[in-house]
Amino acid sequence: MANEEEVVCVDFWCNEFGMRVRIALREKRVGFGFVEEDLRIRERSELVLQMNPVHRSIPILIHRGRPICGSLNIVEYVDEMWGQKSGARLLPVDPLERANARFWADFGDEKMAAKEELLYHLKCLEGVLGEKDFFGGKEFGFLDVALIPFSTMFYGYKQHGGIDMTTECPRLMSWVGRCEERKSVQSVLPTGLDMYDIHKEFYAFRGYEQHGGFDLEEECPDLIQCVKRCKERESVRHVLPDEDEMYELHKKWYGIE
Amino acid sequence: MANEEEVVCVDFWCNEFGMRVRIALREKRVGFGFVEEDLRIRERSELVLQMNPVHRSIPILIHRGRPICGSLNIVEYVDEMWGQKSGARLLPVDPLERANARFWADFGDEKMAAKEELLYHLKCLEGVLGEKDFFGGKEFGFLDVALIPFSTMFYGYKQHGGIDMTTECPRLMSWVGRCEERKSVQSVLPTGLDMYDIHKEFYAFRGYEQHGGFDLEEECPDLIQCVKRCKERESVRHVLPDEDEMYELHKKWYGIE
Repeated sequence: MANEEEVVCVDFWCNEFGMRVRIALREKRVGFGFVEEDLRIRERSELVLQMNPVHRSIPILIHRGRPICGSLNIVEYVDEMWGQKSGARLLPVDPLERANARFWADFGDEKMAAKEELLYHLKCLEGVLGEKDFFGGKEFGFLDVALIPFSTMFYGYKQHGGIDMTTECPRLMSWVGRCEERKSVQSVLPTGLDMYDIHKEFYAFRGYEQHGGFDLEEECPDLIQCVKRCKERESVRHVLPDEDEMYELHKKWYGIE
Repeated sequence: MANEEEVVCVDFWCNEFGMRVRIALREKRVGFGFVEEDLRIRERSELVLQMNPVHRSIPILIHRGRPICGSLNIVEYVDEMWGQKSGARLLPVDPLERANARFWADFGDEKMAAKEELLYHLKCLEGVLGEKDFFGGKEFGFLDVALIPFSTMFYGYKQHGGIDMTTECPRLMSWVGRCEERKSVQSVLPTGLDMYDIHKEFYAFRGYEQHGGFDLEEECPDLIQCVKRCKERESVRHVLPDEDEMYELHKKWYGIE
């Protein structure tokens, strides 16, 4: 019965966490419907509230009418449910390698607020990749699915953080190239420039208000005037973290998965 | 070769996250060595620094000389590695049920800073349990292993937070009783009173200094005097969260798994 097996992905096009789910589905050649949840709008849709009442976040995979939440959780589900179909599993068979892949996928999700910390994390991942083609070895797998969406932010890192990934993490950049040769990745990942533009709009001042659920100009006009005066000072500009660097942190704070 | 198959658990006796690992090992009847890492001491041991250089946290499972980190990750590893031996798997076979178990295990690990939020989380879990004997159904499984260590804090919730779990979450309390009938749980879980005593010592002011890695009295004497004067005020006492309620949050902040 077609309806019984229907697969729907609720996501926003530039959500790095949701990209994982869409890549995994395409890797397994699973046809799916896409319901866009516009994260720039403050209120969550009825569908999201109904399907993920606990976190009210996306991505959500709906299969046989039941929701699965949490992006890495969904990728594992997709791997277990449709792993046989494609012949290849995203997670390795060996329990120790599976545990390693899960460990580094969680590591990829950690908060990275400051530039130094971000660079440390990226170089850790560069070390884990080593001389291998993909994180699991010769084949594209779970950890590649988990990490490749973050490469869409490398353009922003350069523009805002002054981080040149080609110099800093050349192996990671070669890996990005290899991943981008795959159709599943090509069909899901937006360009760095597209991501940069939406992040600027999204996670800067206006985005902050939208996700925090309050209009700062309206709620605290005096505070906002004070903030603006402070930001005119060199000392403040020097210390305040870059808005793009705050991106990962904000997503966690506001429960955007 | 005995050495090749050696299993070592690096943990501290009252670490809720580590209890999961020890319960899982006992459920699978895996013999293991226990290396105590005293979390009350600021510096981490050479073994922890070597085996978990990324997070420097416990628990760590060492098997065949290689480390596995992250408590839920380790429980899955134990389940996959020794699941056949005992005949029963901790994670359900059905992919959707597996995804559900992982989702709620992650939910159990979320930060719970305020009393209202903690109660909301507990009642959510009470709802997930429903009329079932265990979270997975009739058998003790993955989610029971993941959640039962937190029951050692219920005594503290009552003493400090005024939360009476018997009234608030009667089903959860019956579930605790059923879990405590298992030898694996009996042999690992400390009593609520023991946990309460060590938490008081551990996560209050002295614990804060130990885990944050600085001596506040020495570093900021004026600030500490100011804090003490503030705490004498009714308004401040009324607003400041309970130290025990800050426990979960601090553990995350200071990277204690």
